[in-house]
Amino acid sequence: MELQYASTLLETAVDKLSQLPGIGRKTALRLALHILRQDEQMGVALGDAIIKLRQGIKYCRSCHNISETDLCPICANPSRDASTICVVESVKDVISVENTNQFNGLYHVLGGVISPMEGVGPEQLQIASLVERVKAGGINEVILALSATMEGETTNFYIYRQLAPFDVKITQLARGVAVGNEIEYIDEITLGRSLVNRTLFSDSFADK
Amino acid sequence: MELQYASTLLETAVDKLSQLPGIGRKTALRLALHILRQDEQMGVALGDAIIKLRQGIKYCRSCHNISETDLCPICANPSRDASTICVVESVKDVISVENTNQFNGLYHVLGGVISPMEGVGPEQLQIASLVERVKAGGINEVILALSATMEGETTNFYIYRQLAPFDVKITQLARGVAVGNEIEYIDEITLGRSLVNRTLFSDSFADK
Repeated sequence: MELQYASTLLETAVDKLSQLPGIGRKTALRLALHILRQDEQMGVALGDAIIKLRQGIKYCRSCHNISETDLCPICANPSRDASTICVVESVKDVISVENTNQFNGLYHVLGGVISPMEGVGPEQLQIASLVERVKAGGINEVILALSATMEGETTNFYIYRQLAPFDVKITQLARGVAVGNEIEYIDEITLGRSLVNRTLFSDSFADK
Repeated sequence: MELQYASTLLETAVDKLSQLPGIGRKTALRLALHILRQDEQMGVALGDAIIKLRQGIKYCRSCHNISETDLCPICANPSRDASTICVVESVKDVISVENTNQFNGLYHVLGGVISPMEGVGPEQLQIASLVERVKAGGINEVILALSATMEGETTNFYIYRQLAPFDVKITQLARGVAVGNEIEYIDEITLGRSLVNRTLFSDSFADK
């Protein structure tokens, strides 16, 4: 068979690009041709950034967030509140919580949630190291910030039981009506929970 | 300001990825985190393929298609009909025409179409080299396979005038109803042209 793209270099680049999520062969070809149209420097910088990313990134030995150093910048920052740990599924969730500017504690990245369907048990997640951190002392509160799915709830409950022997407050994200949601389209469980957990209206503007 | 992603490596990779067309910062972050989750080998291969693509690709000295060699595999293929040249805008169009399996001649990649609005004149395109190829002799037909836009038509006409002095047949892609199109939604010009250029119905299944 003849080469589809008249060049093995292009063929290889399209192959590799189309292995990325959400990128099919057509998009991959468009990206590759775009790279060819740009300055050589720009294409090389992109390739280089990807290689360096993959080879240079380590994981924080304390919270398992990505890091270039043994301890990530968040864990190493003395101005953060080391007595509060926010438990999240992934590196992406750390970024999401950071972007809220509402949290000044430390994180613990589990690397997923318990999911028997996908063969993920507690031992595949960073739960034991979370227990170690709490056991070591100095932690007042563990905030469970996992998805409000069955897997997330299961994981919450599992962690809750693991941490029960220790003197630590365990909280979870408030369940309720998402900002911008119309009542008409909200599921009954969320609506029910947000009724039970209703807050003082004056609290909603007290901090403004 | 603190780093948004807790890692300059991640920050750089997201920056570079988000310079690609159709990829915003959110998608770039998703791609970067995907690369981190994969085998190291896979990420390095992707970066490497991009660098090699950008550094290794040359352009065919005859048709200006991308190539790894002085003459591209299509131009160098002795079983192709060197007397017919299909003029296209871009490398991508070569791939599209190749994929039809309806063409066995050679190509000429212009690198765009004449567009005064975008400051593209004939001298920015590979038109002079097309004239040279025809002048050199041995060409029976030049097929104009440019977009059916005003810019494409202008370019067609410009090339037509440039090639008029030479003894060469100049054709263009048939204009007509695209396969799958409903008559109700077709513009009048296309419909008019496809009426004028109607073909024998028996021809449509003669080659099956």
